[in-house]
Amino acid sequence: MTIADRWLLPDGMDEVLPPQASRMEELRRTLLDLYYRWGYDQVMPPPVEFLDSLLTGTGTDLDLQTFKLTDQLTGRLMGVSADVTPQVARMDAHSMHHQGPARLCYCTNVLRAKADQHQGGRSPVQVGVELFGHAGLEADLEILRLALLSLEAAGASELHLALGHIGIYRSLVQAAELDRDQERALFEALELKSPGALAQQVEANVADPALAEMFRALGRLNGGPEVLDSAREALAGAPAAVGEALAQLGALHRGVASEHPEVALYFDLAELRGYQYHTGMMFAAFVPGYGQALAKGGRYDDTGRAFGRARPATGFSMDLKLLATLVQSEPACDGIWAPASGEGVAEAIASLRDSGHRVVQALPGQQTPPEAHRCSQQLVMVDGRWQAEAL
Amino acid sequence: MTIADRWLLPDGMDEVLPPQASRMEELRRTLLDLYYRWGYDQVMPPPVEFLDSLLTGTGTDLDLQTFKLTDQLTGRLMGVSADVTPQVARMDAHSMHHQGPARLCYCTNVLRAKADQHQGGRSPVQVGVELFGHAGLEADLEILRLALLSLEAAGASELHLALGHIGIYRSLVQAAELDRDQERALFEALELKSPGALAQQVEANVADPALAEMFRALGRLNGGPEVLDSAREALAGAPAAVGEALAQLGALHRGVASEHPEVALYFDLAELRGYQYHTGMMFAAFVPGYGQALAKGGRYDDTGRAFGRARPATGFSMDLKLLATLVQSEPACDGIWAPASGEGVAEAIASLRDSGHRVVQALPGQQTPPEAHRCSQQLVMVDGRWQAEAL
Repeated sequence: MTIADRWLLPDGMDEVLPPQASRMEELRRTLLDLYYRWGYDQVMPPPVEFLDSLLTGTGTDLDLQTFKLTDQLTGRLMGVSADVTPQVARMDAHSMHHQGPARLCYCTNVLRAKADQHQGGRSPVQVGVELFGHAGLEADLEILRLALLSLEAAGASELHLALGHIGIYRSLVQAAELDRDQERALFEALELKSPGALAQQVEANVADPALAEMFRALGRLNGGPEVLDSAREALAGAPAAVGEALAQLGALHRGVASEHPEVALYFDLAELRGYQYHTGMMFAAFVPGYGQALAKGGRYDDTGRAFGRARPATGFSMDLKLLATLVQSEPACDGIWAPASGEGVAEAIASLRDSGHRVVQALPGQQTPPEAHRCSQQLVMVDGRWQAEAL
Repeated sequence: MTIADRWLLPDGMDEVLPPQASRMEELRRTLLDLYYRWGYDQVMPPPVEFLDSLLTGTGTDLDLQTFKLTDQLTGRLMGVSADVTPQVARMDAHSMHHQGPARLCYCTNVLRAKADQHQGGRSPVQVGVELFGHAGLEADLEILRLALLSLEAAGASELHLALGHIGIYRSLVQAAELDRDQERALFEALELKSPGALAQQVEANVADPALAEMFRALGRLNGGPEVLDSAREALAGAPAAVGEALAQLGALHRGVASEHPEVALYFDLAELRGYQYHTGMMFAAFVPGYGQALAKGGRYDDTGRAFGRARPATGFSMDLKLLATLVQSEPACDGIWAPASGEGVAEAIASLRDSGHRVVQALPGQQTPPEAHRCSQQLVMVDGRWQAEAL
């Protein structure tokens, strides 16, 4: 094995060097402080769980993304967390005893067996918020606001927000009394975004002509806010839940548009990919130049049911690694270079550090220039006192 | 499966709830800021590596602690990082091109297949610093100082610092020309801290009577700084490297004692457990009431050799999870409770949050009292203006 081979990293398992790691740390603090000011309490989900807990009620996509490990203590199969949202829902359902709404946030490493094409590599740092215990639109709107504020805090501009609602598709599936295989076939045709494939699957699986027309319409219902008007028309004969979902999207549209007029709103009533456990409104935020969503979330009620407590839930998450690439600021060159030794130099250095300065002390024999250590000043003896002066 | 069963976590894979998670976040910032002021740049090592890179030159203990995964992209075996120190050494050797000393720090999750009885559970948050490129005692002393300052920043008092030097044992093994099995037998006898077992193994494996006596002496050479005097006497006939190691320990003793007279110093020349890749001085810091070391480190030169660049290295690390249990401060009750709706309330809330306040807005229908959300004030309308007043 050559030296270069020894340090090939697995695809999507990156190291982060300075100054990028400091940018990530700074953004982490900015976001967690933002969530704190909005009343969200930080939690740290377990990095590994027994597999039957980890995957309860989360769907097959998450199963395929989860690295499996054998616990040598018990012989049981464990999984490494690939998405902390369902974990936080379990913490709310099982470990915490909040009456009424609970607001939680987190920032933690997760691992994925395969990269999620819709969100980052195989070792994202997942940061986000979850709001439990409130089924109303106000909760969803708070989550949407926080997502937009998070992206703006990270330096994003020209934001595009895509909104959808899983309830529309689900209600139509229920009304058409599709079995699992038929539903799967229609789902895949919608995912392909091909009108031909969709028409074919609708023809093969949906007997009711009115519902068949509505499924075909779903494939066309994407675009600006005018899509909501078209949808009300095209889906007028659908079950009542469809009308309620459209009304919710309309209200979210008004809420976002009034507070964030700079954000471009986009609706896609057939966008279902990558939403694995959602039950209501769903959203993804994009900026030009990034093919994947920078923030993704929505409503996912009742995830905690298997753990003894069904609660309404809504939230979103982002990949801090990806987010920190939005702004490539130069690291500060704010250090003070100090000599390796000298009468009283240790005390002078300690005092500068205590007052918040960055002091890099030379080690005996060190030849590298102070600039290489991001120092703009140096500590020199002037009139018997150590003083920092410009280099 | 009952509901309780579904949420049993694997041993040592903990969730962290509020307010403990906030304490950890606060301590993380305190420590990383401390390292920044000392000139250390943050890095994030890869969470997963190919196994042959990950375990190069780190010894079997780390192998046994490492969870193994199969990479479905390449079919190669990968390992989840169980100790980031050797990873940071590889980053210094391979990815960075510092001439002269490089100072790096990190704070990241690691996973361990089995708990290290000497340091924490199976999912520690490893935080620490590494100093590369300087072989002198000044570098070791800087690392010792930072370890003590870190523990003090975490609220530790009555600190005990145990110092040792792997070079003493290694030089005696070399002088006695022991083969691998003989060395292993002696190592295990020393680990047992049993004079009887040690005497037996020395008798069986060490032919030279002077060296045999020195090995036996090693088992007794532990205690306060007076141990260094006894060691100079008992190991007077040992190879020159032993004398140099003792001189280094003496200098570190003087350095620590002069700056941190409050720290109790302890020497153990036969303490070898849990130091897997070290080559020089080694240390562990303890506080009363904790059976395990809170900080552990030492010199580990040339770890990067297999990656093309042999560099002197010294550093230490800690488990942030453990460290954050030192002080059980109550979380701040500093929030402002705001009503769900009202003329101009959204603007008042935004303005308070912008100026750094924590504002928890009620959701429509919410019945829980403001105190449950750590609020000490509430937003009320006084003379047509929203104002925060005490609850």
